[in-house]
Amino acid sequence: MADLKSKFLEVYSVLKSELLNDPAFEFSEEATNWINKMLDYNVRGGKLNRGLSVIDSYRLLKGEEELSEEEFFLASALGWCIEWLQAYFLVLDDIMDNSVTRRGHPCWFRVPKVGLIATNDGVVLRNHTARILKKHFKGKPYYVDLLDLFNEVEFQTASGQVIDLISTLEGEKDLSKFTMSLHRRIVKYKTAYYSFYLPVACALLIAGENLDSHIDVKNILVDMGIYFQVQDDYLDCFGDPETIGKIGTDIEDFKCSWLVVKAMELSNEEQKKVLYENYGKPDPENVAKVKALYKKLDLQGVFAEYEKKSYEKLVFSIEAHPSKAIQAVLRSFLAKIYKRQK
Amino acid sequence: MADLKSKFLEVYSVLKSELLNDPAFEFSEEATNWINKMLDYNVRGGKLNRGLSVIDSYRLLKGEEELSEEEFFLASALGWCIEWLQAYFLVLDDIMDNSVTRRGHPCWFRVPKVGLIATNDGVVLRNHTARILKKHFKGKPYYVDLLDLFNEVEFQTASGQVIDLISTLEGEKDLSKFTMSLHRRIVKYKTAYYSFYLPVACALLIAGENLDSHIDVKNILVDMGIYFQVQDDYLDCFGDPETIGKIGTDIEDFKCSWLVVKAMELSNEEQKKVLYENYGKPDPENVAKVKALYKKLDLQGVFAEYEKKSYEKLVFSIEAHPSKAIQAVLRSFLAKIYKRQK
Ligand SMILES: [Mg+2]
Ligand SMILES: [Mg+2]
Ligand SMILES: [Mg+2]
Ligand SMILES: [Mg+2]
Ligand SMILES: [Mg+2]
Ligand SMILES: [Mg+2]
Repeated sequence: MADLKSKFLEVYSVLKSELLNDPAFEFSEEATNWINKMLDYNVRGGKLNRGLSVIDSYRLLKGEEELSEEEFFLASALGWCIEWLQAYFLVLDDIMDNSVTRRGHPCWFRVPKVGLIATNDGVVLRNHTARILKKHFKGKPYYVDLLDLFNEVEFQTASGQVIDLISTLEGEKDLSKFTMSLHRRIVKYKTAYYSFYLPVACALLIAGENLDSHIDVKNILVDMGIYFQVQDDYLDCFGDPETIGKIGTDIEDFKCSWLVVKAMELSNEEQKKVLYENYGKPDPENVAKVKALYKKLDLQGVFAEYEKKSYEKLVFSIEAHPSKAIQAVLRSFLAKIYKRQK
Repeated sequence: MADLKSKFLEVYSVLKSELLNDPAFEFSEEATNWINKMLDYNVRGGKLNRGLSVIDSYRLLKGEEELSEEEFFLASALGWCIEWLQAYFLVLDDIMDNSVTRRGHPCWFRVPKVGLIATNDGVVLRNHTARILKKHFKGKPYYVDLLDLFNEVEFQTASGQVIDLISTLEGEKDLSKFTMSLHRRIVKYKTAYYSFYLPVACALLIAGENLDSHIDVKNILVDMGIYFQVQDDYLDCFGDPETIGKIGTDIEDFKCSWLVVKAMELSNEEQKKVLYENYGKPDPENVAKVKALYKKLDLQGVFAEYEKKSYEKLVFSIEAHPSKAIQAVLRSFLAKIYKRQK
């Protein structure tokens, strides 16, 4: 696994060097240095789960332990496209959320001299995915499908962000709008498509599959992505900050979290009043009142039940799939997230 | 012409309504309203020169006065893709430049409630071009070329922005870096490709041409785009604010303008000192000293000479082109900008 990751990182170096020598642009020395630093800061430093899962999935689809050099490179290049895409989303999301840290470092826009230039850096990151696709996949029979796939998933992510952003607009904060259907819509679009569907869709394409024949795979992965985000919402409040690596602020930030939606569903009028009065405020006293209500409503038990049900449903859907190879891919994703603590 | 523009605007309404009903996303009523307003504010309100020029160019390439309904629609859809792309660039550029107004209205990010959500709106605008291309061009033999074209031009524009942004970094302002070669590189990438080459390239593709056989056309249009931006720099200082619709601030903003580069070239040591001491400062006294030096160096005469030479060179290149139809396209672009006052 350590070996896989280091081989994957070697591909990063190749791709970066190609991008910094792209003949479609005349780089100045300053521009080369800037982009080099920006890429190392924002692309290379993540957990790389999404990128690595393209390689895993492709291997399982082919049913072979070892990929050829070329197959490994292509799967890695697509994995890195997803990492680049995610870096693009995160750089811009941190600006919009006015976040402080990301992966234990200051957000890119907070790095001295960067500031709002980070906005254009996000755009550059986005464009790098298209440059990588063109350089390594132009001429492949599935090239146009790759372009359509990345475009569609990017569109869905940006659209999910729209609902997320306008639901927390200052001056229009309204808890009564936080329904399970809104929550599902936000997380489905802003997280599930790019984090769960996209890696497998990439693997299917290089394996020669037609994505239109795999709508069922998409649906299962999107459901898995939603389950993943519900865990994220749960851990934000009930996880161990040491383990998850950050202190959750969803309550302070008036986030449309699964927890607050569930709490609204389960509260009586008096309890709803507690939420209305305390949710979305920075003061620790307000936060404590919300957390106390969550405990009173036994959201930990409700979540455990949700997790059990989700898992059973996903396993059932996976077992119903006709292809053993695809079952293996889906099971591998599910195993990575079931009952995760971080 | 007024008729052309109103027919073009009808296509906008069709495209917008398709985008607001895109089956790849589940819109909430709030999201629909937000995007509807955002599009009208940022896409519909420009001069539409770039978009309309796709229709003009296509007509000239076909050599027919009247396009069929379908031909008109396709050319217009591509024209709107360029307008969408430009809106995306401008929304983000205004955030990064901390600009106040655009087209006589507050910049989008300054509209109440919008703020940095404008960042994601820019991303949505970018994604809309891909959605329009997929909806109306998927299946055409040149579909993949269109995707590659828009991706490459977007990459070049974002890369041009990188050099522009880092050349005016606070604390590293250094006039000695402002050379003609840097100026040319910035304007070539951040303006010329998308404003001049892209519309004609779109028209060539729908006319069934292969872009690889038209590198000469690209070079002429890029040169025209550079000339256009030099005019822009000139008018920023010497144009009539009434006519150009804004008061230039390139001197205050420490812009790598053609004028300051020329002034650095023509100045003796003493005059250079005036530039070093006064360029890039907000005080009107500093600005006045820079302007006085520009006049002393007869930059108006130098510009008139540059304009004459550029025009002659462009006419010469155009006349050397083997195709009369392409000559007509290029001449039409040149006629629109030669000696423009706004
Ligand atoms: Mg965030
Ligand atoms: Mg966010
Ligand atoms: Mg979270
Ligand atoms: Mg600007
Ligand atoms: Mg700018
Ligand atoms: Mg200007």
